[in-house]
Amino acid sequence: MEHLPGGVLADLFVLLLAAKIGDEIFKRIGQPPLVGEILAGVIVGPGLLGWYDLNEGTVLFAEIGVVFLLFRVGLQTRLADLLRVGPQAGAVGALGIVLPFVGGIGLGAVFGLPTEVAVFVAAAMVATSVGITSEVLIGVNALGTRSGRVILGAAVIDDVLAMIILAVAMGIAAGGVDLGRIGLLLLVAIAFIVIVVAGGTGVLRRRPSLLTEPVFAQTPFLPGVIIMLGLAALASAIGLAALIGAFLAGMIVGESSERHALEEEVAPVAAFFTPFFFGAIGAQIDLAGLLDPAALTLLLAVTAVAVATKFLGSFAGALSMGARRAVLVGWGMVPRGEVGIVVAGLGLQIGVIGGSIYSVVVAMAIATTLIVPPLVPGLVRWAESPSTGRGRDLDREPAEAR
Amino acid sequence: MEHLPGGVLADLFVLLLAAKIGDEIFKRIGQPPLVGEILAGVIVGPGLLGWYDLNEGTVLFAEIGVVFLLFRVGLQTRLADLLRVGPQAGAVGALGIVLPFVGGIGLGAVFGLPTEVAVFVAAAMVATSVGITSEVLIGVNALGTRSGRVILGAAVIDDVLAMIILAVAMGIAAGGVDLGRIGLLLLVAIAFIVIVVAGGTGVLRRRPSLLTEPVFAQTPFLPGVIIMLGLAALASAIGLAALIGAFLAGMIVGESSERHALEEEVAPVAAFFTPFFFGAIGAQIDLAGLLDPAALTLLLAVTAVAVATKFLGSFAGALSMGARRAVLVGWGMVPRGEVGIVVAGLGLQIGVIGGSIYSVVVAMAIATTLIVPPLVPGLVRWAESPSTGRGRDLDREPAEAR
Repeated sequence: MEHLPGGVLADLFVLLLAAKIGDEIFKRIGQPPLVGEILAGVIVGPGLLGWYDLNEGTVLFAEIGVVFLLFRVGLQTRLADLLRVGPQAGAVGALGIVLPFVGGIGLGAVFGLPTEVAVFVAAAMVATSVGITSEVLIGVNALGTRSGRVILGAAVIDDVLAMIILAVAMGIAAGGVDLGRIGLLLLVAIAFIVIVVAGGTGVLRRRPSLLTEPVFAQTPFLPGVIIMLGLAALASAIGLAALIGAFLAGMIVGESSERHALEEEVAPVAAFFTPFFFGAIGAQIDLAGLLDPAALTLLLAVTAVAVATKFLGSFAGALSMGARRAVLVGWGMVPRGEVGIVVAGLGLQIGVIGGSIYSVVVAMAIATTLIVPPLVPGLVRWAESPSTGRGRDLDREPAEAR
Repeated sequence: MEHLPGGVLADLFVLLLAAKIGDEIFKRIGQPPLVGEILAGVIVGPGLLGWYDLNEGTVLFAEIGVVFLLFRVGLQTRLADLLRVGPQAGAVGALGIVLPFVGGIGLGAVFGLPTEVAVFVAAAMVATSVGITSEVLIGVNALGTRSGRVILGAAVIDDVLAMIILAVAMGIAAGGVDLGRIGLLLLVAIAFIVIVVAGGTGVLRRRPSLLTEPVFAQTPFLPGVIIMLGLAALASAIGLAALIGAFLAGMIVGESSERHALEEEVAPVAAFFTPFFFGAIGAQIDLAGLLDPAALTLLLAVTAVAVATKFLGSFAGALSMGARRAVLVGWGMVPRGEVGIVVAGLGLQIGVIGGSIYSVVVAMAIATTLIVPPLVPGLVRWAESPSTGRGRDLDREPAEAR
């Protein structure tokens, strides 16, 4: 076996330790631990102290981290519950994409950015981070609330739409948009989701003990994880985020009769991997690149537009649930995270946007992620508590949401 | 975040699925599942079907796999038990190193290999694989037997000695052996082990609830894993195998008052990672390179000498435990694995040995690993059963050995 540089192990050690110290401090001061983990990643990361590198090891652990996070979320999400909130989630996802995109284009005009740059910045502003949003909802035990499900469903839907917008942006950058190719992308993505979910849950509903039928599997854990890796790789291969495949895998495997044993075994694995995801998000930031006043101005403008447009679009889409819940949903959709950073990284890679715009977009993604969690607990109580008169809709499942 | 090529996820999926299919088939035909996992790695690996690559992702997962495996073994190993078998383990480790090394040098003379090549082949023959040996002992529930502890202790000791021999071999290849540097290496290694074990177990014995004192840690799992990564990185930095650090971390953390909660949470993480280790070992083999009759002859000779010398040396070292146990210990020490492959890879990298010799050494390491497990269950019953008249020595701890 090739000997790995001890450096990768040391990087993983530093990143995990830093994230957990951030977690510890933020828990002690009563703030969202997720924010502490991201800030710890900023501090020890390449942009500041440089105590670890973003290399193939840490990036892989970060990606597997969000894959396991979404797998766990999928386990706690029943297809029927998600379908029940389908119309609202669709409206929230669509309106929550359109407004930020238009806002991003407008911002580009104000700042005099070339069209292809403006389109890329706008594309990086559209998608809500499913990973961040899920962790925030888990943290306040709200994954099973009606608003929680709408946010989760909308975040998944807007990832699919963001993929389409990214394809358009890449087309514009390459000099022309191929509508046929984009239509095909959309078709493949929708077909993947429908076939996987309908087929998978169907098979497991008919045979709920399927996952423990192999001799090697005393529990459904390893068969479930194999399905998770397979669907994550497949989603990635057709251009979707790997975490979408992992979420679908969780929903399917969650139909298993041994679902609770599975959740108990997935919990430590997810606890091990997810800090790498949050820590590595913080490590993306380039603080030196933001010291320039022009960059700082652009950052403030991009962040303000990103927050306002996503909030208003999602709020409008969720209004049929009542104003309070619409506020919670709108706010919960604000965090960008991995998706915005991936889009910006792609723009940097193909040379459409420069290092300075990249830093701005990454900082925007992190800023939207940091401001959301502190307000969520209060909003959840305000919007979802029985005193709002909607107690019967509060179909929370306390035994599962942990 | 940099987007990982979907290929890494696909590689992890293929490797895990293949290993578990190998596991399944071997369990069904009543053979050791570990052998099935390695053979599955051979079949789907780069040398045969080529369905996945050994890249930084799969190699990292393999390394983390053996790190978690040894962490788990350390959790089930109490320092006092290991010290009680110290003299025997030391004798087994030392004699089990000397004979294979002498045998390897003699073999080099017979086949007319240049001195520096012969020394490298001999160095690759000396170290027993702690990873393979542990898994075999876990598989037959014999980690807690007296023979099991001697094998484990001797395998750890011979890893340290192998590091010294490797330093000698590298010195010869570079044109001169620096005895001062080698003495320093040995000193650092021994100091690391003694300080870490004595200090770590001392602290936790005085304060067994230490690991759950942080607010972020509801269970000792994450603090334990952080210690594991830190000591693995440290061991790697001073030239020892990372798995030695992980084993020491397990022994230390095993003094915690919540040890059983910890074991329950480590089990799924280890179950997830270890198949990558065994599968990736199989993937190292280059079958095409072994089709040459000269290579095949050398392989048979190297394997025969490697098995005979390790068995006889370890048997002699263990004779004070009685002949039956000495046979079990001798046989249990035979598997080479990750260490032999690492040494051969290093020789290839610095240009001392060629691709053909590399293939032979890797194939020897795998062959010694494949022949051992089938005989172990019978030998354990024969050597460790109460009917041997040593029932009172059979200090197995059934609640822990699983």
